[in-house]
Amino acid sequence: MFNLKVLSQEDTEKLLNIDDVLDVVENVYKLKAEDKTKVFPLVFNEFEPGVADVDIKSGWIKGYDIFGLKEVAWFGENAQKNMPTLMSTIMIWDSVTGAPLGVLDGNHITGMRTGAAGALGAKYLARKDSETLLLVGAGHIATFQIAATLKEFPDLRKVLIYDAMDYGTAEKMANGIRNKLENEFSLDVNEAVTFGAVSDIEEATRNSDIIITVTPSKNPIIMKEWVKPGTHFSCIGSDMVGKEEIDPEIFRNARVFVDDIEQCINVGEVEIPIKKGTLTRDRIVGEIGEIPTGKTKGRENDEQITVFDATGTALLDLLTGKLALDTAKEKELGINAVL
Amino acid sequence: MFNLKVLSQEDTEKLLNIDDVLDVVENVYKLKAEDKTKVFPLVFNEFEPGVADVDIKSGWIKGYDIFGLKEVAWFGENAQKNMPTLMSTIMIWDSVTGAPLGVLDGNHITGMRTGAAGALGAKYLARKDSETLLLVGAGHIATFQIAATLKEFPDLRKVLIYDAMDYGTAEKMANGIRNKLENEFSLDVNEAVTFGAVSDIEEATRNSDIIITVTPSKNPIIMKEWVKPGTHFSCIGSDMVGKEEIDPEIFRNARVFVDDIEQCINVGEVEIPIKKGTLTRDRIVGEIGEIPTGKTKGRENDEQITVFDATGTALLDLLTGKLALDTAKEKELGINAVL
Repeated sequence: MFNLKVLSQEDTEKLLNIDDVLDVVENVYKLKAEDKTKVFPLVFNEFEPGVADVDIKSGWIKGYDIFGLKEVAWFGENAQKNMPTLMSTIMIWDSVTGAPLGVLDGNHITGMRTGAAGALGAKYLARKDSETLLLVGAGHIATFQIAATLKEFPDLRKVLIYDAMDYGTAEKMANGIRNKLENEFSLDVNEAVTFGAVSDIEEATRNSDIIITVTPSKNPIIMKEWVKPGTHFSCIGSDMVGKEEIDPEIFRNARVFVDDIEQCINVGEVEIPIKKGTLTRDRIVGEIGEIPTGKTKGRENDEQITVFDATGTALLDLLTGKLALDTAKEKELGINAVL
Repeated sequence: MFNLKVLSQEDTEKLLNIDDVLDVVENVYKLKAEDKTKVFPLVFNEFEPGVADVDIKSGWIKGYDIFGLKEVAWFGENAQKNMPTLMSTIMIWDSVTGAPLGVLDGNHITGMRTGAAGALGAKYLARKDSETLLLVGAGHIATFQIAATLKEFPDLRKVLIYDAMDYGTAEKMANGIRNKLENEFSLDVNEAVTFGAVSDIEEATRNSDIIITVTPSKNPIIMKEWVKPGTHFSCIGSDMVGKEEIDPEIFRNARVFVDDIEQCINVGEVEIPIKKGTLTRDRIVGEIGEIPTGKTKGRENDEQITVFDATGTALLDLLTGKLALDTAKEKELGINAVL
């Protein structure tokens, strides 16, 4: 018999704060660069093409003695049933004894670790004096990006939000975000920071230092001509063949990092630039964790364009989940089951 | 928020009876033959070769609207830590909505469904007038085989138990089995049935009608010359490249069925006969479920040697697990968590 902790989405919302998740994600990136992690093969199944599918990502974090999996199910018709269309479950085991440790809802964990990923890309690659952050995409994940980036860049002064489909969505987000950051993320947002929706993406791009893209786009939203020297991109949205958020031409002279080299080449933002020849595999400098471990350096000068392509791995979910389990034990939250 | 039922090994022992599991496994075989199931690719990882590994098998049972996975972790050094060396967790989701349904310990479920598999092979392929059952292997799984086979063959009169490594193990099992079947499996064992350990496998083979092999052997234990006409084999032990329990020569004239054609050819008892040429792929009659669905017939005459090669799929665990979850709801057993 094993003790098994079960944590709902509500539990994980109470247990995780963005500071700790930034540390966790940074740790995973470092461990990955030091070859202390292993990503297992992906399982993917379509129940009905374009209607419902599931993927199971799994892996092992040697440095923290855990292995586990994250299941993500997308059921497009659930909206009509008043159910979430995207559901996720994480399960974690001890990799020294094989004992099960916990089962967790994966939705909030995904948001937190993805926000941290985008912000860490900026931490290592953006100019330290960056003042303007542009969010391309105003969906669920955008808030996490803003929260995490404000943590890493306390001197940011302007956050611009763009939604290619609907200006109203961006406007609504901009109006509510300060409140949300302060209440849901316990962030102490500097009064000098302004949040605003933008409708002119060209102008917004010209004025931004850090650009984070979190859309499901299949065509470039940002063109090379608009990008000012010294801009950093964290490209988060592309995680399937054919997805593309920024102009492949941007990659011609950019300093490019990825979170997982094979996965990014297959399904990330670099997929299309490589296929089109505006980027070659050997020009990808490395995985992002190679910067904090000192294997390579990030930005080389203030004029350089930098790109971090993050497709996400189960490793991030597993170590973030482990943090939630450990904190739940301390705070006596969640349900204690036996297996 | 989703309700999630968590069932421990103890719970599953209370909830499952061998009659119902025989029905479940038969249903899965039929659904598989009717193409109403899908097995997803296997994930396998060695933490340390020969010391610890994990596999994650997953699949979808369309006929029962569930999908899920079974994780099996083997940690050889756990014995020294007073922990089980083999651990298993099953997780089940609804394939219409994607909602999680339950997490279950997989050990007892594995035993029950594996016992049912061996017995169903005999049900479809052994002679109806079979009187003697020989168990080759006296480990944990053997008891389940005997329980399920006695259910399907109430006229069995003799159960022989053989352990290639240690006669004492077989003897101990033979002495305790009636009690175990009556108490742990609620079986009403006919008084006329005798249970006995055997040390001479040649003689035992010559006297047996149904032979079920449940060993981790890598060399044939039973030779062709010993096998009497009309014998049926359910080969359960071989589930990895190189494993082999019976003489490849037995396959030359046998009528052969499998549980999953690709998996059996890759890792089952038929692997080596096919590599050695004593069996060809086109001579495998079909998957076992094709008999009860009427696609093909089982045994053709009383002289024929029949073989069922069962490697096991997650489908069996998932539907057996679903039965446990449904029964747990009725009986208000297990822990109700939320996810």
